[in-house]
Amino acid sequence: MGATYPVRVPPLVTQPRPARPPLRVAVLGCGVVGTQVVRLLTEQADDLAARVGAPLELVGVAVRHVDAPRDSVVDRALLTVDAEDLVTRADIVVELMGGVEPARGLLLRAIEHGASVVTANKALLAQDGPTLYRAADAAGVDVYYEAAVAGAIPIVRPLRESLTGDKVRRVLGIVNGTTNYVLDRMAADGLELEDAVKEAQGLGYAEADPTADVEGYDAAAKAAILASLAFHTRVHLDDVYREGITSVTASDVAWAERTGHAVKLLAIAEATDDGVSVRVHPALVPLGHPLAGVRGAYNAVFVEAEAAGELMFYGRGAGGAPTASAVLGDVVSTARHRVLGGKSPEESTYADLPVLPHESALTRYQVRLVVDDRPGVLAQVASTFAGQGVSIESVRQVPEGDRGDADLDGETPAAPGGSAELLITTHVAPEAALASTTRAARDLAPVREVTSVLRVEGV
Amino acid sequence: MGATYPVRVPPLVTQPRPARPPLRVAVLGCGVVGTQVVRLLTEQADDLAARVGAPLELVGVAVRHVDAPRDSVVDRALLTVDAEDLVTRADIVVELMGGVEPARGLLLRAIEHGASVVTANKALLAQDGPTLYRAADAAGVDVYYEAAVAGAIPIVRPLRESLTGDKVRRVLGIVNGTTNYVLDRMAADGLELEDAVKEAQGLGYAEADPTADVEGYDAAAKAAILASLAFHTRVHLDDVYREGITSVTASDVAWAERTGHAVKLLAIAEATDDGVSVRVHPALVPLGHPLAGVRGAYNAVFVEAEAAGELMFYGRGAGGAPTASAVLGDVVSTARHRVLGGKSPEESTYADLPVLPHESALTRYQVRLVVDDRPGVLAQVASTFAGQGVSIESVRQVPEGDRGDADLDGETPAAPGGSAELLITTHVAPEAALASTTRAARDLAPVREVTSVLRVEGV
Repeated sequence: MGATYPVRVPPLVTQPRPARPPLRVAVLGCGVVGTQVVRLLTEQADDLAARVGAPLELVGVAVRHVDAPRDSVVDRALLTVDAEDLVTRADIVVELMGGVEPARGLLLRAIEHGASVVTANKALLAQDGPTLYRAADAAGVDVYYEAAVAGAIPIVRPLRESLTGDKVRRVLGIVNGTTNYVLDRMAADGLELEDAVKEAQGLGYAEADPTADVEGYDAAAKAAILASLAFHTRVHLDDVYREGITSVTASDVAWAERTGHAVKLLAIAEATDDGVSVRVHPALVPLGHPLAGVRGAYNAVFVEAEAAGELMFYGRGAGGAPTASAVLGDVVSTARHRVLGGKSPEESTYADLPVLPHESALTRYQVRLVVDDRPGVLAQVASTFAGQGVSIESVRQVPEGDRGDADLDGETPAAPGGSAELLITTHVAPEAALASTTRAARDLAPVREVTSVLRVEGV
Repeated sequence: MGATYPVRVPPLVTQPRPARPPLRVAVLGCGVVGTQVVRLLTEQADDLAARVGAPLELVGVAVRHVDAPRDSVVDRALLTVDAEDLVTRADIVVELMGGVEPARGLLLRAIEHGASVVTANKALLAQDGPTLYRAADAAGVDVYYEAAVAGAIPIVRPLRESLTGDKVRRVLGIVNGTTNYVLDRMAADGLELEDAVKEAQGLGYAEADPTADVEGYDAAAKAAILASLAFHTRVHLDDVYREGITSVTASDVAWAERTGHAVKLLAIAEATDDGVSVRVHPALVPLGHPLAGVRGAYNAVFVEAEAAGELMFYGRGAGGAPTASAVLGDVVSTARHRVLGGKSPEESTYADLPVLPHESALTRYQVRLVVDDRPGVLAQVASTFAGQGVSIESVRQVPEGDRGDADLDGETPAAPGGSAELLITTHVAPEAALASTTRAARDLAPVREVTSVLRVEGV
């Protein structure tokens, strides 16, 4: 075991900064994602101001009907149906309406008036992204669109910046959570497509009209954007070959498993010596491939680059809060760009939280003990744990056969006179309590040995 | 099946750009990573110039001994032992020496002379990063360090930019490939730690002195950097609690598996209401968790954020070429920052490769056929495939019991008179050939049905 280092708790430093005028933010569209963006802009206003180096002021939310019912986080006084006007009154315009028009016209108008734009609109970017990029270049403003490709998964910056010194060879993406959920359900319970889609609709994972998902239109738009980014090339939605999952049967999925594969709807962008190929179709993926383990509504983008080798980016590809996270990241980035030329304010120091001593960390443990095999021992061990404030989740007696295996390792001393091995899993407790518990257990007369103490993480 | 869209092949656009003076790049250190950085800078000079908007000129490589044997990609005329001088003659200084001094002094000198710096030096950043960041802030230059945390995996930009509108709650990282390989081998073959380390040394995955890896020092430095980034807080190496894997036994690993866990060395950074906790130790990770599937020398960083939910970043955490990929990404980013204020040159268009028609894509297929069960049919099918230039990798006859399952699905017609189901996997062939092959097979007299045609990807 390593030593416990002395813990240095730095003082909470406040960083005085010159007051800067607020940046005006306009939001177009107030559906599931728009509502979450408004919530985060409101609730985290102080944090965001610290990150940007200037306050972000929400100046308006463009909606179709001011009187429609909505979440109480949205201040009704900010609602407007006049998006044309709103975009001329903002430094940053966040477009969450979807569809090509009127989104396209509004964003071009915003750019013309000097605003930077953040959009989650895959359809618009796949069909006419270059028009937006050129307009923004000419006006010297930003177009950010992290949320358009795979929801919360950061994939735009990695492709555009981190991998820009490398050569991307291939991108394989699971970029549609609905079809991934449907294929998963077919694999797990042998459902036919139609029944799995109905189930997904019942759970709200699929739309009443699931065409955009199951026919691969959503994935095709994302494939066009991914290919454009990976290969620095204009790829239009019409360039993308597309097959949905409607021809996949329960028998296909079952056979895939028998031959060591999972069926996934993939967005594929490949560079060859001749050019770029972009397609969306169901495919068999070997079970050992990292994409095969991407379950349910999760998305993942697998990238093969010449020098970097294989990379994968994994996370939630849709949903209000995850998509809003990506949108807010873009808002802060473009706001910093306007305030500080793109740099983070005072690198790595604007929060400066206290660093806690190790002993205060909360964790669960799995402890293996060899004890005398007689009545009352378990109660004695349990009360020792309880006495230290550590609650036991489960105790399992290691079967003799399994202990035999352990004995072969030469770790557990041969235990004549009857011994038993116990595997104790605790509930969450502070490190300090667990360390003292382990010591106390070691001192108990019927405890012959504490074989192993391991923390459990990721639960 | 979806329709094949007409394919639009845009003309190869050349983007005339005003000639800009080259940016001078100096490399400090010429080991495994330095050699690969020099190779990429040399071999991809034209590409990099297009990406940056100006040529990158390698002006020198600082080494300890000019006469040491090295890879022929390194031009000996560029070698110098005078790093102190070299850093004053560059716009971008790439530091790949490792260790705190003289790297620290050289980078501060470079910054003082107006250079931006790129470093892969985790020890320096974990011990004195803030000094570098402050110096760079004061001088108005960049410090980039994507390669310092997890090799080729883009994690710095996602934490610093993509997630900057969100609140990171926890980071769990497998950031040391050597220990991950060792724990994997213990799990797969029941090896004891010592034997697994010896094997890793034999394969070049572990150093002759494996202390930095197995005692968790390497992971602790990376944990400090990850925590600093995730929580915008100064976390020093000394703040990190550290346990290596030396106390993990074969029996621990075997027991972990029996209780549904994998043993992983984790770098953990957590934010609680009271502050930040940072630690490195072996831990049990549930087998269903995405980190449990990270095998061998791969690294992964799992992030839990308030709005984004769970994200994971996966890839090669070490090695010359993967680390060089991250370094080059930083070089291009900081070069763009100097040339264009951080923007990509002419968004998404500087390569503008031709987009190929779908039919030219190369792929493998798995085809299921129901055929008459009599001699000669397989040969007939195989020759049909061969006639279209498609080579068969394997043919498997579906056992009758399994076909029974398929029949229950109602897909395969009851086949009196003896039928057999074949599962054919092809070698790689162009889409066009496979489509024609499937058609030709369908037309063969003994082929009763082509049950399913699925592409195989990710192999």
